Order: sequence, then structure tokens, then C-alpha cells
Amino acid sequence: MKEPTTHDGQEHFLGTQPRTNFVNVKGTNVTTTIVGTSIRRLDGYEKITGQAKYAGDVQLPGMLHARLVVSPYPHARIVKIDKSAAEQIPGVIVLTAADLPIANPDPSRQGEPLAADEVVFHGHPVAVVLAPTEALAEDALALVDVTYEQLPSVIDPKAALAADAPRARLRALKTAGETEAHASVSGAKEDLEKPASPNVSNQTRQRRGDVEAGFRQADAVVELTFQTQWAHQSPIEPQTAAAWLDPTGTLTIWSSTQGTFFPRQQLAKILGLPPQKIKVVGMVIGGGFGSKLMLIEPLVAAVAMAVKQPVRLAFTRTEEYLAANPAPEAEIRMKAGATCDGTLTALEAEVVFDTGAFPASPLGICCHLMGSSYRCPNVDIRGLEVMTNKVSPAAYRAPGAQQAYYALESTIDELARKLGLDQLEFRLKNAVAEGDPRVDGTPWPRIGLRECLEKAREHPIWRNRHQKSADEGVGIAIGGWPGGLMPAEAGCRMEPDGSFTVVTGSVDLTGTNTSFALIAAEVLGVPVEKVRVVNADTSTAPFGPVSGGSLTTYMVGPAVQSAALQAREQILRIAADELEAAPEDLEIVDGVVRVKGVPDRSITLEKIGDLTMNFGAPYAPVQGQGKRGKAPNAPGFTVHLAKVRVDRATGDVVVKEYAAIQDVGKAINPAEVRGQIMGGVAQGIGWALREALVYGEEGQLLTATLLDYALPVAIDLPAIDTVLVEVPAPEGPFGAKGVGEPPAIPGPGAIANAVRDAIGVRPTQIPMTAERVLETIRGANGKA
Amino acid sequence: MKEPTTHDGQEHFLGTQPRTNFVNVKGTNVTTTIVGTSIRRLDGYEKITGQAKYAGDVQLPGMLHARLVVSPYPHARIVKIDKSAAEQIPGVIVLTAADLPIANPDPSRQGEPLAADEVVFHGHPVAVVLAPTEALAEDALALVDVTYEQLPSVIDPKAALAADAPRARLRALKTAGETEAHASVSGAKEDLEKPASPNVSNQTRQRRGDVEAGFRQADAVVELTFQTQWAHQSPIEPQTAAAWLDPTGTLTIWSSTQGTFFPRQQLAKILGLPPQKIKVVGMVIGGGFGSKLMLIEPLVAAVAMAVKQPVRLAFTRTEEYLAANPAPEAEIRMKAGATCDGTLTALEAEVVFDTGAFPASPLGICCHLMGSSYRCPNVDIRGLEVMTNKVSPAAYRAPGAQQAYYALESTIDELARKLGLDQLEFRLKNAVAEGDPRVDGTPWPRIGLRECLEKAREHPIWRNRHQKSADEGVGIAIGGWPGGLMPAEAGCRMEPDGSFTVVTGSVDLTGTNTSFALIAAEVLGVPVEKVRVVNADTSTAPFGPVSGGSLTTYMVGPAVQSAALQAREQILRIAADELEAAPEDLEIVDGVVRVKGVPDRSITLEKIGDLTMNFGAPYAPVQGQGKRGKAPNAPGFTVHLAKVRVDRATGDVVVKEYAAIQDVGKAINPAEVRGQIMGGVAQGIGWALREALVYGEEGQLLTATLLDYALPVAIDLPAIDTVLVEVPAPEGPFGAKGVGEPPAIPGPGAIANAVRDAIGVRPTQIPMTAERVLETIRGANGKA
Repeated sequence: MKEPTTHDGQEHFLGTQPRTNFVNVKGTNVTTTIVGTSIRRLDGYEKITGQAKYAGDVQLPGMLHARLVVSPYPHARIVKIDKSAAEQIPGVIVLTAADLPIANPDPSRQGEPLAADEVVFHGHPVAVVLAPTEALAEDALALVDVTYEQLPSVIDPKAALAADAPRARLRALKTAGETEAHASVSGAKEDLEKPASPNVSNQTRQRRGDVEAGFRQADAVVELTFQTQWAHQSPIEPQTAAAWLDPTGTLTIWSSTQGTFFPRQQLAKILGLPPQKIKVVGMVIGGGFGSKLMLIEPLVAAVAMAVKQPVRLAFTRTEEYLAANPAPEAEIRMKAGATCDGTLTALEAEVVFDTGAFPASPLGICCHLMGSSYRCPNVDIRGLEVMTNKVSPAAYRAPGAQQAYYALESTIDELARKLGLDQLEFRLKNAVAEGDPRVDGTPWPRIGLRECLEKAREHPIWRNRHQKSADEGVGIAIGGWPGGLMPAEAGCRMEPDGSFTVVTGSVDLTGTNTSFALIAAEVLGVPVEKVRVVNADTSTAPFGPVSGGSLTTYMVGPAVQSAALQAREQILRIAADELEAAPEDLEIVDGVVRVKGVPDRSITLEKIGDLTMNFGAPYAPVQGQGKRGKAPNAPGFTVHLAKVRVDRATGDVVVKEYAAIQDVGKAINPAEVRGQIMGGVAQGIGWALREALVYGEEGQLLTATLLDYALPVAIDLPAIDTVLVEVPAPEGPFGAKGVGEPPAIPGPGAIANAVRDAIGVRPTQIPMTAERVLETIRGANGKA
Repeated sequence: MKEPTTHDGQEHFLGTQPRTNFVNVKGTNVTTTIVGTSIRRLDGYEKITGQAKYAGDVQLPGMLHARLVVSPYPHARIVKIDKSAAEQIPGVIVLTAADLPIANPDPSRQGEPLAADEVVFHGHPVAVVLAPTEALAEDALALVDVTYEQLPSVIDPKAALAADAPRARLRALKTAGETEAHASVSGAKEDLEKPASPNVSNQTRQRRGDVEAGFRQADAVVELTFQTQWAHQSPIEPQTAAAWLDPTGTLTIWSSTQGTFFPRQQLAKILGLPPQKIKVVGMVIGGGFGSKLMLIEPLVAAVAMAVKQPVRLAFTRTEEYLAANPAPEAEIRMKAGATCDGTLTALEAEVVFDTGAFPASPLGICCHLMGSSYRCPNVDIRGLEVMTNKVSPAAYRAPGAQQAYYALESTIDELARKLGLDQLEFRLKNAVAEGDPRVDGTPWPRIGLRECLEKAREHPIWRNRHQKSADEGVGIAIGGWPGGLMPAEAGCRMEPDGSFTVVTGSVDLTGTNTSFALIAAEVLGVPVEKVRVVNADTSTAPFGPVSGGSLTTYMVGPAVQSAALQAREQILRIAADELEAAPEDLEIVDGVVRVKGVPDRSITLEKIGDLTMNFGAPYAPVQGQGKRGKAPNAPGFTVHLAKVRVDRATGDVVVKEYAAIQDVGKAINPAEVRGQIMGGVAQGIGWALREALVYGEEGQLLTATLLDYALPVAIDLPAIDTVLVEVPAPEGPFGAKGVGEPPAIPGPGAIANAVRDAIGVRPTQIPMTAERVLETIRGANGKA
């Protein structure tokens, strides 16, 4: 295994430079000349010129627009829905659950896209109004008369845990959600007590050793309880889909989806159609962050089937906040102990996720990550998920990890302080490395956590942490993500002009197409401008995974690499035949295949195009096909450093400096990797300081617009320094691992630790709004 | 090599029956259970329910409709085009050649879609009028004021051959046409005299031995001169295309095209765009017969580029006849000699094709086939192509073969009569078989001509040929087609429900998709209902050839077969792993993979779908990729038998009985093969008796509507008996060879020979209209 390399400087933009060695898929060292150079995103031009086609741009003849009638109550029985007044308006159609052709009904968001008889959250859709224009549908909404019988509701998760708590839902669900699928982790469920409350929908316990003994060994013990918020992914483009069941029975769905094959399969089950009769077209997507997968597709598809006309639904921003699927809140009690020399002896935690009215919290991942990130012989982590009358939760970039590392990194930090140890060195002493057991006993593969901590130690923010004013503080936090896995395929076709088309079934959410172009260009020996990447729909695409879980580059990338390699081999075989040379004596340079050392003996790629794609051509066309099946996890770790200033008069926290040091395995397109990291940092700052979905006592959402839901904006963000560490993933494409999730993880912990450093007392709730920080300061002063 | 098999009966429709052995791609004998059963066409339902989307169904926002301003003169110089009056109408745009962005201009139909300064035929487009509706564009046509200076024209090909003939075109062309590409034949050009006329655009001479010596050996010699007509393919759907250059620079063309990749490549050259910037979408096509390839695509694409708006052009029926690309007429003098024992000793021919104003006649194929179909030591065939002021010709189903076999089979028939020999036995004695040299000296591969003749000998029409009334006659003729070659690829993907999707880049013109489904089902061991075939566009498809030249099944079929075989092998490997068995011990039965003999040890295809297409799935998705590169020609021969009755008072010929005996290699979908044959027979009857584009002395087309151009209709056609002979093509899919072209070939010869048999005198011009037959009868009576 080679030494990790780092990129501290800026790469030439659009330039090429030779790169140091790295470990490729087969484990041999090769030099890259194209992979590792920073280039602009291939999709940039069409996006900035307004030409990219989003789901909201889909126009179909006779298309109806949909708007939602939603419940004003957190929990109620639907007594009656009177459509008649609305349907008096010419062109207006009102559909309720009974009108939808759901083959396998189940009171989940997927299996019951409109509430059938029981609404379980404020904003729960109960009817859909269709009209030839969105405005007309909106007008007709008010005329749909729904009679509800209110039911007892439960909003506070603590109250929901009581044995005599009202039940958040009366009807049981068949299946749990999909959030946990985003990361491949294993979790044990043992020693679980039967919960007192009927609202408990999931439990886990992950442990090893004897925590009581561990705490007895400890010289210092810290115990804290943390509270996290409901947070919304807030992509710039709301959930949008159009659907049409054509008269030959093919259902086409054009959607703002993060994947195409997975929804196709799910829709097939829900609607009772063969998957071949469903075509999912992944449109250009305006952000997802985990939220855009099978929330509105079942509804739009079922409505289109019911009315046999094309239908489009685009959520309003308020519907996004009210009825999409944000990250759920958690309360985490954590207790940790260590000896004077900085050896962790025990870690205990209790996690409670409020999963709203649908069991879909990332409980397992959260508990797994908390128990697996530091070497500790005695661990006991109990997790519990409880239902309340709130919206359905779903994946939010690194689901479960934000909560896990916020609690863990705050606790570890406090423990280091109590022991009088340097926070970074304490972490480094206990940080896991290759071979250390995770909480479930499985060993970590090669990971870059220690390398990132070592790199953080040298960073100016950390080196200069003591040179600060009285109101300033510096914090550190780690974060890690196991990395998702899902099989993938790709094709690589040579064109008549010697350029190449890479075809995948994935969705380009984060610049992955640009990385695929770099990978193919590297393998083929052609400039990246000669490679075009096309994301095909499910009717013709090679199978593609969901773009989520930091898996796209890691899973699709090797398929592209293999496909390009096959294409290259086919080219060399044809050229060898034409040039009467051995394939291994040939090279591809500047669009020409030539005999190494004899540049005059050559054949152009265009000529090979002629020889493979014309009437009577003597060779088969050049087309490679690559696959990626089983692969080991390639976990990605990162360390964030934050320097903040706290206004002691107002409680306002300003992030002054920020650095993200991340093991990316191999930066295929460093500019894009840095962009991903910066976006993740911005979301982490949002979680730490600003964002929250706030529910009133009656379950009413109080933050249903962008004015109320405080996304971080440019002035909230400092310059972000990104440091790329490359600890190659043995089976990643050119050593790359997923980079999407990790940067969104450590923000709350790093900033909380910085605030603690600044004000001398620990905030234990995010977001750390000015009000809360002021309270924390005043509480501490009161105590003092 | 196995014995050929024949199908004389009717297959069970949609049933399955075991079939006898055949030779597959690798030359081993296997039994088929699915290939060889007759099923309905997969595209039938969407066509009969009106849901199939043709190019004329394409609707794009802001789309302009085009109509053509065409020349009223056969030859003229364009002095001036005044657009101003037309463009006074709001929304109307008029474009001329100067407005089109042609990167590589050339006065061909492709390289100059609008005449730049010289019009060379009546109907030659000189300007395009665009408007938001077709009606408005039509209205504006009359307001475009074109000033012409008439030039001397030449309409009659004989006149065009004179040294002092007017030149049909003043400007020279860069390139010849594409017609000859439809069949792969080699031809020698030697001993060519320099032509006297500047209108001669192509010449060939194909010979062996010494014809003078051959005629001296002969006991009988026949010399005849034949005249064929200009004939139009007349697909039910006229030429139609829509195009849009989107602002990211991608030019998409939705077209009624017979192929997608070939036009993409040609358009790239003409328009100076990289092929990756052009997306050709092959829409459902309403017939082509060779005519739909690159006639209107360059015009529509160039117009769309010029106006930067979507544009659609659908030819009217009159534009089809006036300005599309029909089959050109030919005059053929043929002389043949044989000895008393029926041995052919010499064959001589002179062929003159009238190629209109564009050199694109099938001269080479015609001469090649005439000289290659019978064993003859002494052959001398001279061919010549001459330009006149008529429309551009192009491929018409079996281009050049109708003319060749009409002349050849009439002459052979007359020679047999002169020698007093049975016409069938005379043919059989001289018919070529495997190893016999073609006129260019290359040996024929295994062909089924003799097997078809032997089968014809047993047919009731032939057996009972002497039991006829005085006005009746029976005729026989052979026909053959070398078979085209063009590389192909295909993909085969397993779906989550255990069904399969085959993806090709070909266009389904004649039911080939249904054949691909049968091939894939056979290989995979699943019912054909479990296979769907998708024709993708050029942006994502595996490379596909043009659907023409009888090559689609022969070239794409094996790619599908290989792709399905790969998919099958992947399935068996996964199942073997899961069942702990060896792949060779497994079989796929009823959607389940099971251990042979132990049906309980099994795994469903659906389960394999789960194991390959889910989060964390342990195997790569099942997807096979197949290719077909170089392949030998697989020529297809056929023998037609016709029984006619001639009304001696009117000259009207009625076809009473008809049989087509054809070597199809292997009938993959017998119902479809029979359908193909019946369609070809109908076209042959049209050529023989009805159809002709008739030009006036001034080059004006007199038959520009379906009232004037006499297509055969139901009452013109007898019941057609189809007899399938299976002489396997060693490298065809399951032994299949192309079946599209051969049935359209022998009709004119068979019917001419039957008319000769009925009236005792030989007609030498097609179509044999009542008027001409009456003249022939009267001429013979006059002589008698």
C-alpha cells in the first residue's frame, strides 16, 4: 500500500498535470495524466444557459397539473371528502385514495400516496386536484370539502414513549423505510426490552465488553445529553414528476429522482405492473441530498393511471417543508470514560429518534457509527425509534451520521478537556484504523481517519488555535461514512469521429458524469473533450444504482473503467490486425493508434470507425461493457476544524475560519471534490447554527417557507479550506472512494466544540441559535 | 451440412412446436422450441390501436412546418428567388440554398438539399417555406417568385447517350450514390470504352470466357431487348422528419428513417458537426422499401439549424412521386445460347440504366446478378448508366435485381422453348450451386437455388401446368439476392421480474424486433412474452446497421443471440453459486433456474434480480452484450410460379395462382416470413402489370398521385402460396438468412413467362398493361 498523498494547493483549472502514483482497481501502481486534473463540469454549460431540462420543464399534450389537499390536523380520521363543488369547475378532477390504482396498499407514504382514512401529520395529502393549469388547480383546492374527525395526537417524542401515550397511528405499517439502505452496515439486535409504548417502531442495541467495568477503570467520565433538530434537505428544485400511461400500457415517469431503476422496481410492486411496462426518465436534477427518491413518483404515477392523461406535480416550497421527507430529530444521551493517559475505557449511549408517523429513521447507522469510530473495549449503545404525528422522514445526506458525530464529538471533546488532554491528540490516540473492530465486531478496512487527523494537526487553524481573542474558539470534529453499495453497469462506444460515448443508468447529481468522462479518457488515452456521458432511461440504459450513499463514483466508476478498457482492447486488436503488429506494441496518442517507437506505422481512430460502422465493414463496432457487482465498503473519513467568534451580548455565532481535511481515496476531479466538500460544510454550518423545522404544540409546522426555515446563505459562510488526503480504496476507480456524505457530517460537532472553546460552557442542542447560545452563556453565568 | 427442411403447411399461430435440427452460429446442431414458431408481431398492438408514434406525430414547442417550392422545369438555371411577398405573411420564413448551413456542398440531393443555381428535374426543390401551420406554409408557396432561365433538357435515355445530347447537368457531382451499398458484391471494371456522351455517369463490364466462341457452340440462340419502368416504393407513410438544434448544440432528428447510425454519420459530414452532436431518433416507420434513408434528413436538419427552431417536413403524396427517390428504368439487351442437351454456352447483355439527374442506379448489382445465376463458361455483360433530367433514384427493395431477373428469366425461358426443353429442368440443369463461380470469379457459398427449383417441380401450379384453358399460362422465374452486410451490436438485460429487455440500434421495418424476441427467448429458455425489444436512438443505442439489403436479421440477430447467451451464462453462474452446483448442471425452466433432475434445488429469476439490482446486492446485474462484425454473404434464392389468364379482347392480365418457394435459411418467425414473401409478391405483380412513373416529353411527371400511379390493390392479387425452404446459412442466427429482398424479384419474369405461355408471344416491356399486351397480341397476329 502506497503512502497517502495530499493536495493542499489549487489545481490548474482545465489544465493537465502528471500525477503521482496511486493504486488502481487491480492493485498495481499506474500513473494518471487525466484522472486527477480539475475540469469544469460537463453539465455546466447547459445549466447556466438555462437549457437543462428539469422535470418541471416536461410538457405533454393534454397534461393536467396537480395540487394537493392536505390535512390541517396532525391526526384525524377522514369522514368524508366532497369533491362536487371543485368538480363544478370545468376541467377540474379531484381524486382521493379510493381512486388510485394501488395494487399493494399499505398506509406508508409509498403504499398509500393519499391518506385513505387516517391522516397522521399536519400536511398529510388527502386528495389531489387536477386541472389544465396549476392556477386553476390551486383555485379549486379550497372547494374540496374534507370532513375530519380529530383523533388524539402526540407531537413530543418523550410523551410518545409513555405507556399511555396516544397512538401516533392506528393502522399498522407493513414495511419499514429505505433510509438505512443508503449505507451498508450490519447491526445486532439483542437484549432488547419490550417497549412500553405502542409508538416505538424500531429498536437496536449494539455493544461489546462491559461498560460498567469500563467506567470503573476510567479516571474521568463525561455524561451529556444532546438534542438535534428536524432538518430539511431544501434542494433548490422542489420534488417534481410528470407521468403518462400511454394507451399501449407503458407508464413513463419523468422525475427529479436520484435514481431510475430503483424507483422503477418499487413502482412495479406498488402499482402491480411488470417493470418492463414502466419507464423512468431521470431528468436533470436540481439537488436532492437524499430526499428525492420515491416520495411523489407513486402518487403522480397512480394519478396518471387513474385519469389516463399525462399529469405533472411540482411541490411548492411550502409543500416541500410540510409534506416531503426531512431528517428526523434525535435525543442522544452519551457517557464516555477514559484514563489519564487518554485511553478510552467505556462508551455508553441512548439514542431516541423521533421518526414522525412513518418508521424510517437512520437509527441503525447512527448507533453503528457512534460505537465504531474510536477504539474502546466497552461499548453499549441503545437505540429506539418512536412515532409521533409529524411528517415522514427520509435520507438526508449522511443520514444518522450528523446526529451520531455531533453527540460523539461533543462528548469526546469534553472528556479530553476534563482530562486536560489536547483534543486532537486524544482523538488520534483512540481513532480507529485498518483492522480495528467496529461495534459489530467486523474489522475496518483501510481508512484514512488517522491520516486526516495528522494532516489537521499541521493546519493553521489548529496550529494557531491558542492565538485568539476572548470571544473566539477553535473546534475539531471527525466524521465518517461507511459508503453505500449497489451494483452498476456502463457502456463505452466509439463514435465514427474517434470520440467516445459513455452510457450509464445513473443520475448525475454531483458531477459524477464529469468524473466518468475523466476515467474513460484516462483509460482510452484520449482528451476528456472526446468523451461524452449520457444517462439513459430505464428502457435502454445499462443498470444504474441510486445516486446516494456516496456510491455513484465508487460503483459506476469501475463499470465505466472496465467498459473503456474493453473498448480500448477492441481498438488495439483492430489496429494490430491492420498494422500487422501485436496489440501490446501499440499506443493511442492524439486520436491515432500507433506502433510504439514507430509513429509512422499508425491508423487513426476515425479510420477504425470506418472499418467498424459501414456497409460491409470488416470488424464489429467498438463497444465495451463494464460491470461492478460485489465490492467491499470504502468508508470515507474527514476531520473538520472551525474557528468561531461568539457575540456574548446576543449569542450570535460567526464562523470565522473553516477547514475540511478529507480522505477521498483519489480525487478524480479535484475541483468537483472540493465543491462537494464546500457544499457539505455549508450544510453542516446550517445544521449547527440555523436550520430547523419547528413544530407547534399541535403539530403545526411553523417554518414552512424559506423565510422561516433558515438556510445558511453566503454571508453565513467563511472561506472554506479543503485539504484532500488520498488513501486509496483498493477497489475504487483509480483508488477513489465516495466523497459526497462525509463533508456534511462533522459541522455541528466542530462548531459546537469551537463555541464551547469560546464561551467556556457546552451547548447541547442544535441549531445553536443566538437565543440558545445566549441562554447557555446566561445559564453558565448563573451557575458560576 | 444437414438436409434442407421445408414448411408447406400452416404453423400454429402463437403456438409452439418442436422443430427439426438446424445449424446454428457455431455450426452445431441444436433443437429449437421457440425459434421457428409463428407469433404475432410485437409492434402490432400499438399500430392497430393508433398509438405507434410516427415521425409525423412529433410535436415540438414552437415547431415550424415546411413546404417545398419545386421547379416546374426539368432543367433550368435559377436566376432569382424573391421571398418578399411570401414573407409579408406574419410567421412565414422562406429559405433557399444560400440560407442552409451545408459544410460540404455538392450538387447531390444530400449535399445540396435545395438546388443552388441549377435545377435538374421537374420537382427539384428550390426553396422551403416555413410557417407555424402546414396550411399557412402551403398558402405562402405560391407567393415565392422564382425566376428561371430554361436550359436544354434531355428526358429520353437513348437521346441522352448521343454525343451531341444536351447535358442533363452542367455542374459535376463529387460522389456517387449509396444504392449499391445495399448488397455486397464485387464487380470488375475493365475494357471500358470511353463513352461518347457526357451524360454517362457509370460503366461496368463483367465477363469471363469467350462469348463469341460460346455462341458458336450453341444449338440455339435467343436475343431479346427488354424495357423496365421507373417504379416508386410508395410506402403508406410519406418521407417525414422533424429536427431541432437545441441551444446546447445538439441536433436531434426524429425521422421515418430505415436506419439511425448511418444517417447520423452522413449528416455529420454534410453539416460539419461531430457525430456526438447529432441524435437520430428512428420513429415507428410506415414502410420504406429502400426509399427512406437520407433523402429529407439533410434538408430538415439544415433548415432547423438555420432557423434555430424545431422544423417538420412531411412530404405530400405528390411530393413523394415528384421528388423522392424511386427505382430507375433500364433497357437490357440480352443474348443467350445453349446446346440441344440444355447446356448454357454463352450469355451476353447490354444494360442501360436511366439514372435521372443523379448517378445512383443499381448498375453493378444488376450486371453481377445477371452474370452469376447460371453456370455459363462464356459471359460478357456491359453496363452503362446515363443521366437524364428526371428525379434522383435510390434503392427499391432488391435494387437492380428486378431488372436483372426480368431480362434473364425471360431470355432463359425463351431459350428453353426454342430448344424444346422443360423450362424448370433447363434452369435446374444450369442453376448455380455452392462453389460455382459468380461472374467475378468468386465462388457462391451454400445457396438454396437448386433446392427451391426441386421444390417448385412438385408444386401443383407447376405439376398441373398443362391443365389449363387456351387463355391461361404458367410461368416460372428465379431470383436471388446476395445479402447485405453491416456490423451490429445488441444488449440483453435481465429485469427484476425475470423478464428481459433486448436493446438494439436498428429500426424495426419488417418485424425484425419480433424475430429478435424469439431468438433471445430461445437462447434464454423463457417464453417470448418475457422478452421486450427496444430500438434506442443514437445517443445510447448499441451500434445498429441500416434496415435494408436483407441484412437486419442476419447481422443484428447474431448480436442478439450472443447478448442473450452472455446473459444466460451470467444467470447460470449466479445460480450455480447460490445453489452450490456447476453451471453446466443447471437449466432455465418456467422462470426458474434449477439443477437438472433435481427440480427442488432451484432459484427463481426474480430472486436473481434481487441479488443483482438492490442496495448491497452481491452480484453485478445480468446484462449481455453481443456483436457481429465480419460475416460471409448469405445469398437468398427463390423461385416463383405464376398462373395467369389473359383477356385476348382487352389485353388484361389476371394472376390466378401464385406460389413463392424461397430458401430462408431458417424461418425464425414463419408467419412473418410468409408475410414478407406475400408483400414482395404483391410488389412484383405491381411491377409486372401496373406500376410506372410516366414522364411526358418535357420531363413532367404524369403520374403524381395514387390515382395515376397504379399500385396493385387487393383485387389484383391471387391467394399466394408460400413455401419455405431451409438451407441454413452457416453464420446466420439459427441458420437464418435475410428474407426481405428475394420475394420482390422474380414477379415480372414469372408473370411475363406466364403471359408468353398464354398468348404464344413474348411481351418485352413492363408493366404489361392491358394496352401493351393487346399490342403484343395484335403484333404477333399481324406477323402470323
